[in-house]
Amino acid sequence: MPLNLKTHTEHFTNPLYLESGRILESYDITYESYGEINDDKSNVVVICHALTGSHHAAGMYEDGKKAGWWDGLIGPDKTIDTNKYFVICTNVIGSCFGSTGPMSPKYPHNDPYRYKFPVVSIKDMVKAQRILFDRLDIHRVEAVIGGSMGGMQALHFSIHYPNFANKVIALATTYATQPWAIAFNKVASESILKDPDFKQGYYDPEILKETGLNGMAVGRMAGHISFLSQESMGEKFGREYKSDDGLFELFGKFQVESYLEYNGHNFTKWFDPLTYLYITKAINIYDLARGFDSLKDALKKVTANLHLISFSNDMLFKSSEMKKINDTLNLLNNKKHRYIDVKSDYGHDAFLVEFDKFKHHIKDALNG
Amino acid sequence: MPLNLKTHTEHFTNPLYLESGRILESYDITYESYGEINDDKSNVVVICHALTGSHHAAGMYEDGKKAGWWDGLIGPDKTIDTNKYFVICTNVIGSCFGSTGPMSPKYPHNDPYRYKFPVVSIKDMVKAQRILFDRLDIHRVEAVIGGSMGGMQALHFSIHYPNFANKVIALATTYATQPWAIAFNKVASESILKDPDFKQGYYDPEILKETGLNGMAVGRMAGHISFLSQESMGEKFGREYKSDDGLFELFGKFQVESYLEYNGHNFTKWFDPLTYLYITKAINIYDLARGFDSLKDALKKVTANLHLISFSNDMLFKSSEMKKINDTLNLLNNKKHRYIDVKSDYGHDAFLVEFDKFKHHIKDALNG
Repeated sequence: MPLNLKTHTEHFTNPLYLESGRILESYDITYESYGEINDDKSNVVVICHALTGSHHAAGMYEDGKKAGWWDGLIGPDKTIDTNKYFVICTNVIGSCFGSTGPMSPKYPHNDPYRYKFPVVSIKDMVKAQRILFDRLDIHRVEAVIGGSMGGMQALHFSIHYPNFANKVIALATTYATQPWAIAFNKVASESILKDPDFKQGYYDPEILKETGLNGMAVGRMAGHISFLSQESMGEKFGREYKSDDGLFELFGKFQVESYLEYNGHNFTKWFDPLTYLYITKAINIYDLARGFDSLKDALKKVTANLHLISFSNDMLFKSSEMKKINDTLNLLNNKKHRYIDVKSDYGHDAFLVEFDKFKHHIKDALNG
Repeated sequence: MPLNLKTHTEHFTNPLYLESGRILESYDITYESYGEINDDKSNVVVICHALTGSHHAAGMYEDGKKAGWWDGLIGPDKTIDTNKYFVICTNVIGSCFGSTGPMSPKYPHNDPYRYKFPVVSIKDMVKAQRILFDRLDIHRVEAVIGGSMGGMQALHFSIHYPNFANKVIALATTYATQPWAIAFNKVASESILKDPDFKQGYYDPEILKETGLNGMAVGRMAGHISFLSQESMGEKFGREYKSDDGLFELFGKFQVESYLEYNGHNFTKWFDPLTYLYITKAINIYDLARGFDSLKDALKKVTANLHLISFSNDMLFKSSEMKKINDTLNLLNNKKHRYIDVKSDYGHDAFLVEFDKFKHHIKDALNG
């Protein structure tokens, strides 16, 4: 069967009550689906995206030049088999790819929210998705799966909507964002805020897409460091030097420098800087235990089969952070969770790259 | 006996021939000394400083408000005992603290070099020091000691001037700068270069010291991440939040964010951005094996007692990098080296902070 890729945007006027106490009145949620829903709606799999991801999880985009961020895993006869499952990936609230975010028109006017946009949390992102699923008449799903910020959402589903998913699979994530990750986000936010072309949030997004925003490029370069590891950088780049520049020229470049420069500046052509500030804020304030007495107290809520997958050389969310969730569930005598630390040198981005190292774990989790 | 701190600047007109093939004609070298040289000049210890360090290794500065960067180790009755040793710390060529660097007047004119300053290497820094010591009539020293970029210099001394030091102690350093470290430097250089106030290198240094250079602040913030570790950040900051800002305020700050902001912006008041570009370039192109067929070939030159000290959680220069030097020396059947991996969660900055964890190793090395 074909992938059957469909993109929709749903509009809501009933206000979304946010964790901050503020509301989002009138908002859109964009989502994408693959495969077909079965008669009793028992084959739904929800995929949650990461910081700079979108609802484009599978399939090809931009005239076939760009694949969905998990296209290697989702599709007909793939790990998350769209012949079997109806897969939905929702663009998070706060994003710049269709769902309402800081650059969306502020209801009931046409000007963008910019700084008037409320801070949203991971809990809010999940709440908005839950409301969407209700409208779609989906009340229980087979699985929720996500990595990094998507993993934060998956864990939130398991705690705040314990009867929603049979299985929850969280990869390369944590129970609460630690200062090392907050520090990388800080470099990016400071760099964006201090760029004069950012115009204190009052930039013209069309112009920025053309010229690029250097501040965001620099911030993204720092981000790319955190996504890799010393080992993967050593393997990818070593000390290779761009041959046309002499070693003793101040602006001569090592390959790793070219890589960061290209990815940093290219990023500013397709991602919005205010959105970057808001989504990294959501990641920074992420704490699974908020609203509970403790992490243990929060994890008592879990009833789904919970699969925790970390990567041994993840510099951003260390294996030990995922292990802490596992250990806490063990203390609670939870019998339905499983923790796997995938041996990898790649670093955080392993969940987007090294499919062969973990796809069988996802397959097992879905089948088991 | 008192510390006997003395600061001198020596002027040289005989050109310094650089590794690049370029020359530095007429240059200054600033250095500081502590203790007293003995009659046969057999008690000299050379200390080499790191990226943003200077010749102020010991003693107090700025009206007693700021201590030398290794004041905890160097002084009367301290680990590097100035009652016994005559300690010299030289400001490297390329610096902004007295020795000739990119903001020094370009001979024979009065305008600063700026981009006309040649790229200098670690080898050049060491060569300039060796010339200084010749002028000071010091032809052999008891020890050369340094951490990080100072460790690179110490290792260079051991290979290129094998008859100069009886003992060489290199801490928290590597045999060649790896892409992870180059990547952090790249974030800084890109951030500096893209800041409009940098004026493509034609800034007014006096104005910048007043206003600060945001681009350098951001770059330094990234640097501070690399100097710590996930563990030390967790211990230092946890998820502490600045209490007067709400968690859901976009510009509310975690403690780790305040720390980075303060240190990043404060840095721009006392360090020169062009110098930062040049010194990080020297670090990036550092490769102990350059000019030899291999690292093994380079290390054959070593005759000093070589002490290698790494820190187990150094994210910038991993223990495995120092271990590679040790393993190569073992292959060469070198009997005069010793390698210690100091157990520490602190990260790279351990060599500037956790004196109690390694000072006995330095004492042993000096006595042994």
